[in-house]
Amino acid sequence: MASAAPPPPPTATAELNMNLSTNYPLFTRIRLAGKPDVSAIHKMIHQMAVFERLSDQCSATEPSLSATLFSNNTPFESVTVFLIEVSTTLFPSSVSHHPKFSPIHKTLNLDCPISDPEMETFNSSKTEDAIIIAGFVLFFPNYSTFLAKPGFYIEDLFVRECYRRKGLGKMMLSAVAKQAVAMGYGRVEWVVLDWNMNAIKFYEQMGANVMQEWRVCRLTGDALQGYATTSGTHDLDLI
Amino acid sequence: MASAAPPPPPTATAELNMNLSTNYPLFTRIRLAGKPDVSAIHKMIHQMAVFERLSDQCSATEPSLSATLFSNNTPFESVTVFLIEVSTTLFPSSVSHHPKFSPIHKTLNLDCPISDPEMETFNSSKTEDAIIIAGFVLFFPNYSTFLAKPGFYIEDLFVRECYRRKGLGKMMLSAVAKQAVAMGYGRVEWVVLDWNMNAIKFYEQMGANVMQEWRVCRLTGDALQGYATTSGTHDLDLI
Repeated sequence: MASAAPPPPPTATAELNMNLSTNYPLFTRIRLAGKPDVSAIHKMIHQMAVFERLSDQCSATEPSLSATLFSNNTPFESVTVFLIEVSTTLFPSSVSHHPKFSPIHKTLNLDCPISDPEMETFNSSKTEDAIIIAGFVLFFPNYSTFLAKPGFYIEDLFVRECYRRKGLGKMMLSAVAKQAVAMGYGRVEWVVLDWNMNAIKFYEQMGANVMQEWRVCRLTGDALQGYATTSGTHDLDLI
Repeated sequence: MASAAPPPPPTATAELNMNLSTNYPLFTRIRLAGKPDVSAIHKMIHQMAVFERLSDQCSATEPSLSATLFSNNTPFESVTVFLIEVSTTLFPSSVSHHPKFSPIHKTLNLDCPISDPEMETFNSSKTEDAIIIAGFVLFFPNYSTFLAKPGFYIEDLFVRECYRRKGLGKMMLSAVAKQAVAMGYGRVEWVVLDWNMNAIKFYEQMGANVMQEWRVCRLTGDALQGYATTSGTHDLDLI
């Protein structure tokens, strides 16, 4: 299995070469996303909507995402996206680090290479070595009054189809959980569709409690817009 | 009882006197909360926990709330609290207005006066006319990738027991919905316990869709803390 290989020392040695020669190494990196990544995020959001059978509810466009994501450049204080990237060559070490987050690297040893039909579309590299965006997790702070602590709410966790069942989702969820702990936050929460048994099993294995008695309420569309015209009852409208 | 006395009219007119003379008027105001309100908010959070049969999960203290609420003084961009206050006399007009929100006033004509056993505890007035905090709604921005728009998530909506069934909860929920529309947001969301049929009926009457197929997942406590020690796998830990 990929995770069974003993880790080599960090500097390149003969041992490293020997370990890699018998497998297909896939280098992965989790990093903060920014404005230049919106195009890839947009495509993945729509792929996710198809998987969730909710395409009819997905009206996001690349311009509308550009206008609302990463506008204040303060990761973790508002909407934040981690991307997971993969490459068959080592990542360059030139990525600038955020004060509260450094990219997370891990190497997988696969039994067979991955054929990515959308490799060109999701290539985020400006060099000749391809760096492919394989998934994303989008989250933002929430707040628990019971704990009197902030937490993180994960809106989306998505791994592109050809990279699934390799542990990438687990790596991204772990990264968010680890960030929450580092910031002293009390909870990480998200929702799951009750028919998505694979996801539920995965989340439970990650230590999450899938709560059965809460229901999500949503006020949106025309029902929400109707409140624009409800009685303002400002100062002069006393009775 | 204190709340039984009909209030003097603000600008005495015969018409106003006639309207009020047959009922018990209760003046209400929704305003932004701030640091000085944390004590009252703390008490209401614990009353809410009792109602929800979740007291064992409520560890918030007044100092821990003080340390985490209203720290950046930017309502609507992070955790925001609206308080609903009631008074048997007209509210003074001296409240400072936020650029994005003006207090919302409404007068209820009740059939009988309200006896508030905790009137002293929840008196937020510094003058001799009592202004009583009757409830609160706590919310913060979230984000929908499908809409590519922010929204509001309501963490808590609470009306103190003696003020229930007077429309105060509806007024607070409407205020949040109206604020969302004013800011161009796409959704207002919250969760409800599946056994709380009164709340579910109320929310549906407000236009909300109570979604049956989503389940809330929560990673907290020791399960979350465990991620502090998961493999950092930073730059030097490549495999």
